[in-house]
Amino acid sequence: LTDSLALGQRMHALAAELYPIARSLTGPGVRKTLSILKREFSPITIHEVPSGTHVFDWTVPPEWTIREAYIIDPKGRRICDFSLNNLHVVGYSVPVQARLSLEDLQPHLYSLPDQPDAIPYVTSYYEERWGFCLPHRDRLALEPGNYIIHIDSTLAHGSLTYGEALLPGESLDEVFLSTYVCHPSMANNEISGSVVTAFIGKWLAALPRRRHSFRLIFIPETIGSITYLSRNLPIMKERMQAGFNITCIGDDRCYSYLPSRRGNTLADRAAKHVLRHIDPNFRQYSFLHRGSDERQYCAPGIDLPVASVMRSKYGEYPEYHTSKDDLTLVTPTGLLGGYNALRLILEAIERNVCPRITVLCEPQLSKRGLYPTLSKNEYDRSIKTMMDLIAYSDGTKDLIQIAEIIEKPVWTLYEIVSRLTAVGVMEDGH
Amino acid sequence: LTDSLALGQRMHALAAELYPIARSLTGPGVRKTLSILKREFSPITIHEVPSGTHVFDWTVPPEWTIREAYIIDPKGRRICDFSLNNLHVVGYSVPVQARLSLEDLQPHLYSLPDQPDAIPYVTSYYEERWGFCLPHRDRLALEPGNYIIHIDSTLAHGSLTYGEALLPGESLDEVFLSTYVCHPSMANNEISGSVVTAFIGKWLAALPRRRHSFRLIFIPETIGSITYLSRNLPIMKERMQAGFNITCIGDDRCYSYLPSRRGNTLADRAAKHVLRHIDPNFRQYSFLHRGSDERQYCAPGIDLPVASVMRSKYGEYPEYHTSKDDLTLVTPTGLLGGYNALRLILEAIERNVCPRITVLCEPQLSKRGLYPTLSKNEYDRSIKTMMDLIAYSDGTKDLIQIAEIIEKPVWTLYEIVSRLTAVGVMEDGH
Amino acid sequence: LTDSLALGQRMHALAAELYPIARSLTGPGVRKTLSILKREFSPITIHEVPSGTHVFDWTVPPEWTIREAYIIDPKGRRICDFSLNNLHVVGYSVPVQARLSLEDLQPHLYSLPDQPDAIPYVTSYYEERWGFCLPHRDRLALEPGNYIIHIDSTLAHGSLTYGEALLPGESLDEVFLSTYVCHPSMANNEISGSVVTAFIGKWLAALPRRRHSFRLIFIPETIGSITYLSRNLPIMKERMQAGFNITCIGDDRCYSYLPSRRGNTLADRAAKHVLRHIDPNFRQYSFLHRGSDERQYCAPGIDLPVASVMRSKYGEYPEYHTSKDDLTLVTPTGLLGGYNALRLILEAIERNVCPRITVLCEPQLSKRGLYPTLSKNEYDRSIKTMMDLIAYSDGTKDLIQIAEIIEKPVWTLYEIVSRLTAVGVMEDGH
Repeated sequence: LTDSLALGQRMHALAAELYPIARSLTGPGVRKTLSILKREFSPITIHEVPSGTHVFDWTVPPEWTIREAYIIDPKGRRICDFSLNNLHVVGYSVPVQARLSLEDLQPHLYSLPDQPDAIPYVTSYYEERWGFCLPHRDRLALEPGNYIIHIDSTLAHGSLTYGEALLPGESLDEVFLSTYVCHPSMANNEISGSVVTAFIGKWLAALPRRRHSFRLIFIPETIGSITYLSRNLPIMKERMQAGFNITCIGDDRCYSYLPSRRGNTLADRAAKHVLRHIDPNFRQYSFLHRGSDERQYCAPGIDLPVASVMRSKYGEYPEYHTSKDDLTLVTPTGLLGGYNALRLILEAIERNVCPRITVLCEPQLSKRGLYPTLSKNEYDRSIKTMMDLIAYSDGTKDLIQIAEIIEKPVWTLYEIVSRLTAVGVMEDGH
Repeated sequence: LTDSLALGQRMHALAAELYPIARSLTGPGVRKTLSILKREFSPITIHEVPSGTHVFDWTVPPEWTIREAYIIDPKGRRICDFSLNNLHVVGYSVPVQARLSLEDLQPHLYSLPDQPDAIPYVTSYYEERWGFCLPHRDRLALEPGNYIIHIDSTLAHGSLTYGEALLPGESLDEVFLSTYVCHPSMANNEISGSVVTAFIGKWLAALPRRRHSFRLIFIPETIGSITYLSRNLPIMKERMQAGFNITCIGDDRCYSYLPSRRGNTLADRAAKHVLRHIDPNFRQYSFLHRGSDERQYCAPGIDLPVASVMRSKYGEYPEYHTSKDDLTLVTPTGLLGGYNALRLILEAIERNVCPRITVLCEPQLSKRGLYPTLSKNEYDRSIKTMMDLIAYSDGTKDLIQIAEIIEKPVWTLYEIVSRLTAVGVMEDGH
Repeated sequence: LTDSLALGQRMHALAAELYPIARSLTGPGVRKTLSILKREFSPITIHEVPSGTHVFDWTVPPEWTIREAYIIDPKGRRICDFSLNNLHVVGYSVPVQARLSLEDLQPHLYSLPDQPDAIPYVTSYYEERWGFCLPHRDRLALEPGNYIIHIDSTLAHGSLTYGEALLPGESLDEVFLSTYVCHPSMANNEISGSVVTAFIGKWLAALPRRRHSFRLIFIPETIGSITYLSRNLPIMKERMQAGFNITCIGDDRCYSYLPSRRGNTLADRAAKHVLRHIDPNFRQYSFLHRGSDERQYCAPGIDLPVASVMRSKYGEYPEYHTSKDDLTLVTPTGLLGGYNALRLILEAIERNVCPRITVLCEPQLSKRGLYPTLSKNEYDRSIKTMMDLIAYSDGTKDLIQIAEIIEKPVWTLYEIVSRLTAVGVMEDGH
């Protein structure tokens, strides 16, 4: 497994390129983001779904384009300038050109009294509003007088844009990765998700052999997953063996896991197993703490096996949904840790055979050079792992289950499985 | 839910009216008690089952009538006078008219050395005996000499009497309540059971709508439940969804729960859920601590879903089965607490739908005015409860199960279920 | 249950007789051991399986005979003399006659630096080697010079020898005991196993009635169980209800239990129940700590219900596999404790009915003289046990399960089952 910091730095560089783009649910920011991701990971195909399309109980919203937005204060200074930080404008703000007193402006301002230096992230996708976000400290300094409001935006029929890559494998059975591309300039939530997913895609595409097919999607959150599900549900239900929602995967503080609704799917088992072995202190949330696209993937009647693997979970770190969630919070080592965890999980799924011993009783390993011929008081540790694997290889348990029973990281078993299979005493009982 | 002390006081007044009556397994005390209960709760029908009737492995015993009983001590004083306290006579004592030395009298006396001021409660239903109960302090003061024994009782062919009320609902499915009317002047065990059950009956009878039918019985303990079962078992097994043995439900000290033998029936789940939320310190007993009619309701081959909801459990408080179990131990607030707990449990069963979301993915609640349209960092608590309810409403879990999963009292979900059902995104998946 | 120390002393005397014999996987030591065991427990039949026989993935090895073995040191003294302690020679050493420098001799010597006074036990069954074992202290004292090596052994076509006793019962269903006879002079591991198994066999043979048939085998470890399984697997899988590997059952320090691979078989339930009640501090190992013939009995595809009941487990006491595992470590009380535990376990299996009450509701026990007719505040303890047994006797649970539920040793229930069966209110629901 690579631990090359160079890889972390390449991911961080991509994050830095994507960070300033003014993304929202729809519009040019999403398209620009997807085109950069496609440059890095070419199997991505771009899809457009027209505004007004009915997707289950929802409707694809109008497309939002924003060109300029700012306020001129009573002294003539330009403040809350969108061109300086795209968090200054409430997402999906309607166009406005107005002169308002401070008192009339106040209901359109958003700030965080307990984080006076941070610009909060606010959106209003499903009701027509306009507004500006600013540090609370700046808001308190606003003087009475007339303010000129300028928002040059369009909210019009257009489309919802998403990216999709399908990497075929030996089987039609699929592993699914979903991440989102609708957040403006914030790094952990959510440039980290797109970056790590694209790099995982590159690694998958380069594998000499894939047992599973892999489906990776880059969507706007909520309406994007609902839209995608409304177009692909039957095939997803038929083929998906395990799926992951990739979000908040770039900081350095911890590892986090949020289960699927059922909680015991292959995705859950693989994620919990890997995280327990790479970081015994990883944070295990319950499905009651959900808040991203697993809300849709695990909804009643959808019920896909989708779990979330994260570093610091959304809603659980102070910088969440503010301008402080930036590229100092997300680091090369943070991204690399998330990438490596996810890669170990996907490998665990790829190599998850259901081993079965082909002989009755223990095989005689000494005649095959796999067992010491001299009795000793101390049982060699690697021999012990091999014998434990054999003892549970009855064709009813997969390798992840056996690794849990025998209390070893599953990746320490791959080589033993290969060796035992090569000498003919083990086969895949799937 | 009412917390009106007035209701508690009305229950306490009824308890005070019933308290002095000389009840036993059979006889005029039971009939008088049932007639007062019927005056309060008119749906009660009185049944008489003749002595000698075979009921499973048992036989209905002779009817016991007692008119007078006392002892004249050597100084000519009347002691152990039944007219002063009906606990003075061993229940089912045969008539006796005799003169005995103190030495010969002693084997017929019962007292409690460790509770020297209390008269114990003793019966001898299935072997012909006579005896007197008295405070140990008084017993020690008895002087040598001749004692005149007088018990004017009749043990003769008659009948076993019980009361039964059936409140029909929209469904033939039944909820069952059983309490007993065979204890002489003791308040928690057992006037409290009859009183609370009668008042619950009044509440049920006044409901505008009942989904379930309710069956309430007022019986002598053990032989009464065996007799009732011998006459009604097939219909009980077919219809009973949940049942409760109502006993010791009038004091103020704690809440207690004793499971059915299977332990996981609807009755158990509803009782445990409600008690956990109204009193996290409620006492949870095991079926090994059983001692009342659940012995019959949960016997092998009977196996009805009957749990016990109590305040201080029989056998577990110092006044149990003595003259100290009186109307100072049972209080208006104690009775009211028991009544309210039971009512919450019955409501949980009445409203226990099996909710199912009618759309795929999360419903779009903002277009129905049920969800905020402005993104916020803090998730509103009531929205959170609604979204959690939706997430688990897959038609396979009932509302009590969902309440357990999402860690909310089930009664906080009724209104949300109504609202979501009204806008068409939820239905009962039963 | 006998606790007669005389029995322990008889077992210890047999252990002392068997101790000095030079056992190995095959050869005259095994035959002599089996002939002494057959003298004590006559149902044993001796079987011989020719060298070279294919047994599953293994082959029966050549037979090993050793007559003499020693080293002459540079001063002409005889050391490592097999006739003084048969642990001095590596098991299955090929014959050798040689003169070697100390340097060339060293690779053939085995000792324990951390136990300098003990001779270790070493074997080389599946590769041709020769070697000597000695106390590390003696090894360090060896002087440079020429050493004369003398091993007069034969490794030649012969047979593997094992003993088998089948004690027929009323049913063809079998209980299985397996112990091994391949260890040279060591007492807990493993003369204790043969001795206790033979004495258990004597007790079983003398029983007036056996519900189950009992199969007892005395085999060399690993190759013996593989050989036995290869000849008897179909009938073992069809008939075996419970089995035990009897090893390390003679010291005085603790009781130990190692489960079958499935972990919840009748053998496991009986063993855990009995050990918990005779010694709440018994050591419970997991199947990951296995190391004896349960490796074969519980292998994938074999999957027999075989658990291990021990005193100090192999590999877990300092004297294990050294000359210090002698007849001071194994004691009369140690052997007796092991015997008694095993006997209670086998009795629990023999008497493990599936009780069912024949009447509905609780039976009326007072009319049968089994229940007090006078109500009392204190529930008599033996009545309580009887009523608890009745409450769970629904024909779906066996007596061991009920004993676990009602938290009583199963042997306290046998008499109650007999009494209730005699009066006709209980039957075996198997």
